Amino acid sequence: MYVVVMAGGSGTRFWPASRRQRPKQLLTLTGQRSLLQQTVERLKPLAGPERVLVVTGLGHAQGVREQLPAVPSGQILAEPLARNTAAAAGLAAAWVAKRDPGAVCLVLPADHLITDESLFMATLERAIAVARAEDVLVTLGLTPRYPATGFGYIETGQVLDQNPPQVRRVAAFHEKPALATAQEYLESGRHLWNSGMFAWRAEVLLSEISRHLPELAAGLNELAPHLGTPGQDAALAEIYPRLPSISVDHGVLEKSPNLRVVKADFGWSDLGSWEAVAELWPADQADNVCQDGRLLAIEAQGNVVAAGGRLIALLGVKDLVAVVTDDVLLILPKQRCQDVRQVIENLKEHGLDQYL
Amino acid sequence: MYVVVMAGGSGTRFWPASRRQRPKQLLTLTGQRSLLQQTVERLKPLAGPERVLVVTGLGHAQGVREQLPAVPSGQILAEPLARNTAAAAGLAAAWVAKRDPGAVCLVLPADHLITDESLFMATLERAIAVARAEDVLVTLGLTPRYPATGFGYIETGQVLDQNPPQVRRVAAFHEKPALATAQEYLESGRHLWNSGMFAWRAEVLLSEISRHLPELAAGLNELAPHLGTPGQDAALAEIYPRLPSISVDHGVLEKSPNLRVVKADFGWSDLGSWEAVAELWPADQADNVCQDGRLLAIEAQGNVVAAGGRLIALLGVKDLVAVVTDDVLLILPKQRCQDVRQVIENLKEHGLDQYL
Repeated sequence: MYVVVMAGGSGTRFWPASRRQRPKQLLTLTGQRSLLQQTVERLKPLAGPERVLVVTGLGHAQGVREQLPAVPSGQILAEPLARNTAAAAGLAAAWVAKRDPGAVCLVLPADHLITDESLFMATLERAIAVARAEDVLVTLGLTPRYPATGFGYIETGQVLDQNPPQVRRVAAFHEKPALATAQEYLESGRHLWNSGMFAWRAEVLLSEISRHLPELAAGLNELAPHLGTPGQDAALAEIYPRLPSISVDHGVLEKSPNLRVVKADFGWSDLGSWEAVAELWPADQADNVCQDGRLLAIEAQGNVVAAGGRLIALLGVKDLVAVVTDDVLLILPKQRCQDVRQVIENLKEHGLDQYL
Repeated sequence: MYVVVMAGGSGTRFWPASRRQRPKQLLTLTGQRSLLQQTVERLKPLAGPERVLVVTGLGHAQGVREQLPAVPSGQILAEPLARNTAAAAGLAAAWVAKRDPGAVCLVLPADHLITDESLFMATLERAIAVARAEDVLVTLGLTPRYPATGFGYIETGQVLDQNPPQVRRVAAFHEKPALATAQEYLESGRHLWNSGMFAWRAEVLLSEISRHLPELAAGLNELAPHLGTPGQDAALAEIYPRLPSISVDHGVLEKSPNLRVVKADFGWSDLGSWEAVAELWPADQADNVCQDGRLLAIEAQGNVVAAGGRLIALLGVKDLVAVVTDDVLLILPKQRCQDVRQVIENLKEHGLDQYL
């Protein structure tokens, strides 16, 4: 089997720590190593670096190589521009299929946090076993912890294996819901968060792509002779931009009858904002957290600071997020973490590309 | 005549821009030059650099020399430790008296802002003329603009010269008042802010010191033979620490009957806080100001940022002060500017001397 790490994100929500050339997955947001390094390290019991593929943007390939020196350079597949997850997963499957069409691809994002690693491994092993045994696309569905409106949901059908991690059929996919609907999903017991984690045999995904995304299948066939050869990068540069841009969920899974979902109960976070990451950092008695710096908080409460090695002095302020780097300082209220995008848009409008 | 610049302040209120080694008067808070440089430049029509004396802390003497290369090095009088303004003014008078006991000393702080320079000069010229003509200590009294509780007040007596800038007798000095009292002072028309700006002949101040502070007079007599000689610094190091520590207001002026006050109406600010300085910086439409940096403000209002050359992105925050340097970030609400002292105290308690 192969581990396919999807490392294409730009991570604008962690600006100004994340930048075009230094996306979220390459940042050290938790612990001593980057999220990408932690992802690959975590999966070592399933697949060593010689069986890891990383799909990433061309601008990040060098950073990925430096962070993962044990992964063969040719297995860092650089997209000349982003074509969404169907193309990325298809590319990885085509690469694997040239070596072993029957090999299972375990597809995972590079920038998530897993807190219960042994349950995580058991869940992955179950997903891999299902993908090996049947001609199906297996997705991991996370047990919702709250009525999230920021995730898509998988509505599950018949339970095929009661023993946890449970295996179920997929009844339907649902887009990010409104809060009331999310509340219903949470209470139903049948709806799971769509995690972006998958397992399938390379040949099964390619066959589903042929059926549902023939244009993508044609492009991958064109690429195939070059994959794993010295001409790989040149072929990607020429052919990849022409691939259709659609997610693997929309383009393939939602159209396929051959699906399974494995119910995932391991502690998980997509680390979607400074506030989410801050929950992992040690807090003082007044719930202030400070990463990479020393905090002096006086009558200050609930603040989140990424200090870039500085002393941070807070006096009489509450629930702020502050991120300081060598060239930027960002300050906003904690509840507006998601609006960092507005800052990015504003920078683009003002032509301040050097800060992106 | 001589200009005596009192540059002994530590400027903790501008931390972290001001530090032990880089006090307020050496900072570029307004315009292109430091407050000290602006002070000396402003007084050039009255006294060129060869007739400027600067009294400053030993730790700041080098910084003062670098900023004022035209002032002879021996005229930068370095206090081995601070002994308040009676000692500083007495030292300068003793230095001047060795050259010319009858010369007028114009004593001014190094860290104030003057907005109406021609009226400022006219007021100083009046004060100098009075000091030349009479054996008196002349103080400048600023017309109060609001009921300030942070300044001492001079209660004025008989008007001796009606023509502005008016010359009056001094009836009494009053400590920093409570708000109700300050309001009465403001309405009385007889009370002026005590500015810390003075004019007197060197021999007159020394004579008043002999009368009211004999211990200081003895120390100055001991210092006198060394002033203006190569042994000046060594003598200061040995004798200065033994001088009594008291302000020239408390120790001399309040006890002397030989006083005059010149009413000062020029635009003036002691630049006592980030908020006060920020009033001089250009504001955007939402009243945000940013010094030494580029500001991107989204739904942000009334904020004050000293950016240290950075891009500052503010989103949805109001009335904050943020100061960022290479090693420190400070954030506090604008109305708590005066509490920066608390941060300094806290740093000391925690032994974080490198940030002071």
